[in-house]
Amino acid sequence: MPTKLPVGILGATGIVGQRFIQMLEHHPWFDVSWLAASDRSEGRSYGEAARWRLKTAIPDNVARMTVSPANPKDAPKIIFAALDAGIAGELEPQFADAGCAVVSNSSALRMQADIPLVIPEVNGDHIQLIETQPWRRKSGGFAVTNPNCSAIGLVLALAPLHRAFTLETVMAVTMQAVSGAGYPGVASLDILGNVIPYIAKEEEKMEEETQKLLGTLRGSHIEAAPFAMSAQCNRVAVEDGHTESVAVRLKKKARPEEIIAAWNDFRAEPQQLRLPSAPAQPVVYMTAADRPQPRFDCDLGAGMTTAVGRLRKCNVLDWKFTVLSHNTIRGAAGAALLNAELLKAKGYLS
Amino acid sequence: MPTKLPVGILGATGIVGQRFIQMLEHHPWFDVSWLAASDRSEGRSYGEAARWRLKTAIPDNVARMTVSPANPKDAPKIIFAALDAGIAGELEPQFADAGCAVVSNSSALRMQADIPLVIPEVNGDHIQLIETQPWRRKSGGFAVTNPNCSAIGLVLALAPLHRAFTLETVMAVTMQAVSGAGYPGVASLDILGNVIPYIAKEEEKMEEETQKLLGTLRGSHIEAAPFAMSAQCNRVAVEDGHTESVAVRLKKKARPEEIIAAWNDFRAEPQQLRLPSAPAQPVVYMTAADRPQPRFDCDLGAGMTTAVGRLRKCNVLDWKFTVLSHNTIRGAAGAALLNAELLKAKGYLS
Amino acid sequence: MPTKLPVGILGATGIVGQRFIQMLEHHPWFDVSWLAASDRSEGRSYGEAARWRLKTAIPDNVARMTVSPANPKDAPKIIFAALDAGIAGELEPQFADAGCAVVSNSSALRMQADIPLVIPEVNGDHIQLIETQPWRRKSGGFAVTNPNCSAIGLVLALAPLHRAFTLETVMAVTMQAVSGAGYPGVASLDILGNVIPYIAKEEEKMEEETQKLLGTLRGSHIEAAPFAMSAQCNRVAVEDGHTESVAVRLKKKARPEEIIAAWNDFRAEPQQLRLPSAPAQPVVYMTAADRPQPRFDCDLGAGMTTAVGRLRKCNVLDWKFTVLSHNTIRGAAGAALLNAELLKAKGYLS
Amino acid sequence: MPTKLPVGILGATGIVGQRFIQMLEHHPWFDVSWLAASDRSEGRSYGEAARWRLKTAIPDNVARMTVSPANPKDAPKIIFAALDAGIAGELEPQFADAGCAVVSNSSALRMQADIPLVIPEVNGDHIQLIETQPWRRKSGGFAVTNPNCSAIGLVLALAPLHRAFTLETVMAVTMQAVSGAGYPGVASLDILGNVIPYIAKEEEKMEEETQKLLGTLRGSHIEAAPFAMSAQCNRVAVEDGHTESVAVRLKKKARPEEIIAAWNDFRAEPQQLRLPSAPAQPVVYMTAADRPQPRFDCDLGAGMTTAVGRLRKCNVLDWKFTVLSHNTIRGAAGAALLNAELLKAKGYLS
Repeated sequence: MPTKLPVGILGATGIVGQRFIQMLEHHPWFDVSWLAASDRSEGRSYGEAARWRLKTAIPDNVARMTVSPANPKDAPKIIFAALDAGIAGELEPQFADAGCAVVSNSSALRMQADIPLVIPEVNGDHIQLIETQPWRRKSGGFAVTNPNCSAIGLVLALAPLHRAFTLETVMAVTMQAVSGAGYPGVASLDILGNVIPYIAKEEEKMEEETQKLLGTLRGSHIEAAPFAMSAQCNRVAVEDGHTESVAVRLKKKARPEEIIAAWNDFRAEPQQLRLPSAPAQPVVYMTAADRPQPRFDCDLGAGMTTAVGRLRKCNVLDWKFTVLSHNTIRGAAGAALLNAELLKAKGYLS
Repeated sequence: MPTKLPVGILGATGIVGQRFIQMLEHHPWFDVSWLAASDRSEGRSYGEAARWRLKTAIPDNVARMTVSPANPKDAPKIIFAALDAGIAGELEPQFADAGCAVVSNSSALRMQADIPLVIPEVNGDHIQLIETQPWRRKSGGFAVTNPNCSAIGLVLALAPLHRAFTLETVMAVTMQAVSGAGYPGVASLDILGNVIPYIAKEEEKMEEETQKLLGTLRGSHIEAAPFAMSAQCNRVAVEDGHTESVAVRLKKKARPEEIIAAWNDFRAEPQQLRLPSAPAQPVVYMTAADRPQPRFDCDLGAGMTTAVGRLRKCNVLDWKFTVLSHNTIRGAAGAALLNAELLKAKGYLS
Repeated sequence: MPTKLPVGILGATGIVGQRFIQMLEHHPWFDVSWLAASDRSEGRSYGEAARWRLKTAIPDNVARMTVSPANPKDAPKIIFAALDAGIAGELEPQFADAGCAVVSNSSALRMQADIPLVIPEVNGDHIQLIETQPWRRKSGGFAVTNPNCSAIGLVLALAPLHRAFTLETVMAVTMQAVSGAGYPGVASLDILGNVIPYIAKEEEKMEEETQKLLGTLRGSHIEAAPFAMSAQCNRVAVEDGHTESVAVRLKKKARPEEIIAAWNDFRAEPQQLRLPSAPAQPVVYMTAADRPQPRFDCDLGAGMTTAVGRLRKCNVLDWKFTVLSHNTIRGAAGAALLNAELLKAKGYLS
Repeated sequence: MPTKLPVGILGATGIVGQRFIQMLEHHPWFDVSWLAASDRSEGRSYGEAARWRLKTAIPDNVARMTVSPANPKDAPKIIFAALDAGIAGELEPQFADAGCAVVSNSSALRMQADIPLVIPEVNGDHIQLIETQPWRRKSGGFAVTNPNCSAIGLVLALAPLHRAFTLETVMAVTMQAVSGAGYPGVASLDILGNVIPYIAKEEEKMEEETQKLLGTLRGSHIEAAPFAMSAQCNRVAVEDGHTESVAVRLKKKARPEEIIAAWNDFRAEPQQLRLPSAPAQPVVYMTAADRPQPRFDCDLGAGMTTAVGRLRKCNVLDWKFTVLSHNTIRGAAGAALLNAELLKAKGYLS
């Protein structure tokens, strides 16, 4: 059996850090060997430091690991980063500079010109931006990011349409789960029996990330996709799974059965390479009139499949539909993990 | 003190029927003298027949009333109707035919050409359609309706914009409270920790009712407003208050402060006539970045005020904003009650 | 590979019926070959008839099965029954009379003198009551029942204490999940942001079933356990998992570590026989100060393990603790399934 | 019109501080003139500093007040304290020492021998302990406390029974609202679809406070009530209103109608003195089988009335019943306010 690659997790005690640990527990290629978190956690065992909020148990070996200080000394060469944007903007470059492959879920670097923002099924070729990063030349290190949890499900639903019919206009309204805000995150007094029609900076992220993800690599930069894009973001009393009401205008006319086929038939490099975390079917169209629903459908494809439903004509744009994606799996830890798997398959990790 | 007019309630045991009773308890003009509901309830006291789901107590005199059969014999001449659409389509014409003023919350008749669909602040003049109804000529009876609970808040927010700047395009995504589905309505297993992206016939109602409400009376018919309108409707785990993420394109360019002023300054006939249930301010713009929210804001103006917030530029249309309206007060019982008050003020009731 | 035994499900479309189908999908001994439900569903495919409320998909072969009428003609010889009590009291005897092994989750027959009420880890020997049933002599058929969803977790937690220290007094207050009321069951307007301090007949069932389960087989009847038992039952806004605050008085003095060991070391026939649905550890004591919690812990042991926590001194009785059990797995479908497995292992099924 | 007494609020920005402001808005005797909160809020306007979580709006004059530093200099002579226990233990004595009447909701001083722990309907005479406080002699200042939010509803339900029938044993299991934990308090990820069977120190407070409240003033100390008392505390997904499943043993035999009469007829000094915040009826017995419920009943008597229901025989003790009390009104701000009103009526404030 080949040796697994040791990986570290920055921000290991948060909700996304926990998902990394859960998804890496039986991973065939990667092995968690190092955990770092805030100063408060440093030096304690992970089992004590983390307030574990998942249904599966903390893996025993991880529970016993000591939380390390968040600096690259003694860290392994592959780092999954699940930090808040503020601290990520400071720490991730340090790790890349020290020669680490930083596979980040944070928003800090996503929109920088030389940082690949990647969904492997959508724009795996953007990974080549790595070669334009100064760290790469200096130490071999680099950074790759995945999109915001609200953008990723949307883009997986849009990509097959964009390929086949060319998007002209996209409008999306989200109803986002509380786990997207981390832990403790949203106070129960704020969300029980309530909707919060505001998530700081979320609409801007959705809009610009969607256009970068569906953009085109032109040498050393990404040309943003030229369609118009508008997002409205709401928080709802759901634990996991972001639901989105989407409307699009397409350049080429499409019949509904063609659109549905575009979704159901969508396959890409992760499926061809059989990456361990790649879902067999990245996008599934659900035919029931009232699906997808977060409580019942967000675990499709082990949380890596985007569910789409309710395709129907729009009086303003061309089509309306509903998108659902698991926000801490496909929308965060699973997104970064799939990025790492693609990097490994392409020879960037060793 | 002038004698109050006796009124009856059709569908008195449901959620909207209960709101009618609550709102009529201390009403200066109307007095509940007759209650009807399904056969199951007939002959029982209202206190036994209704599964009361409001925070205030059932008025004692109402609790003791016997539930009557749902036919016009012995019914008073003013009827508030809170029936399901199927049965409403059958019963409401019977009551109108028998000479009653039927002030209905049901969808059954709303889109008929000779039926006024009215929000008193928006299109009180549509009431004149009454004169085109065959019942009116025969027995003096007539029917007036109010819009769906998802349309009314939206239209109150749109009307000031349409007046001042002319709407060209409207897109709305709703997050609707469970009380909108009546009782027992939405099963808890369907909505706890969930979003349901489908409400039967709701999107069609929102779209066509909005255009009729903002349409123009041309003699004996309403010319629908000519703007394009698209709705997507979702159910969320909220008890009361429909929240909507809205985007609009306006014909006349408007600055944000002009739009906000249009909302805050909006007054109409109900305010001028000082109708008892009219809110002092029909539309309130909330300046906090994360408002309105249903749990905290749906009782504004005793549930009769529509709250708007988050006005910001839209990359696709011109403007985005959030609308909140109490779905069983302004969106149902209060809507019908205000219609009845307008009818009274205009001399249609006696 | 030995042929699997064909089994039927009575009440297949309900929440517990769905759990039966889910748990039987890959069962090594049993194969679902027949489904029956109310007249409304009869003749339709199961996929159309059932409003599936689980996170895993309906097995394809089951979705295509036609729902049969609920009578023993053409039914297989092993019947899992998930009917409401009223109809169960009528139908279950018909099936037993026709020679079926009726493994029932219903309350209808539970307290009859000749009906075994069984938790395999607790009182598997009660199964012998089968031989006293008239159906057994006539057609070979018989009926076996499992307890109410609120009793089963409690009794699994009490059994090790009763064995080791003898119970004198038990007080239990439940906080029960909405799935315990079936579907549609509890209306969302009744439970969002609420506690309902009443579940019809539930307290009586908990009290009498607990004493029968921990009672002693005396020839052809069960002598109820002699301890005093009092229950108070509440419904809370939880999807799955009944939580109970329990206090007990024990005859023999016990130290806390002895009590915890009694729970953690508890094993019984299902574990020794390695029954397919038996959890490796029927009762697990959780050491964290704030566990067990339904959202995180009700799937322990694939939903078949009872979690206990917070053992501490009681000022009135001796000890207080919290019990959690999955109400539709260990508390319903899994309970019946484990009963069937025990019956098979003991030679009652073929 | 007589001048109102100026009052200050310590901990004004928290959930209980907000309730103080709400309840004092139109108070006939007291006028908010000073607000203090944590250093973070100091110097800002209250409107900016507080994250207001109530349905009624912040009173305009309060929104404009500047938050003062939390020291007695410049503070008025009557202080409502809504501080966390840690900081309360430090600050409250400073204010009392400086001559203030400290009417506290905090747990810090409650169990000190010379501190009255008071519910005006239950043990108003305990107020005399004030005279044993060193501050009283030095500066005229003193401190009076109200009980924990979980104890107060229970004690209001127990007091009439204790008077009439003498309590021998009390067992209570709580299902407590999230507002009891303050703001941000309970994380939504912890409580959505969940029960938390643990609230730090809550059971101890309930037990000891109940016995002090129902105890007897013996000169300069309180002799705790001699009954046995055991509590189990749970957190549920309810916004406001603590529900409790209670069982009691009584020394004198009582018939159910006598018990119910004891509750419904219970009146005390606050009612006789017509204190402004005193409910007309402190305890109401609800006859419906499934009441009281927090969502519908916690606002009874403007949140100052304790609702009781479901009286029935207990197999272990004598009687079981359900108690409901609004935890931030009767259980916190309203409790302190009623204490202040009693103090005023008795001449302690001026």
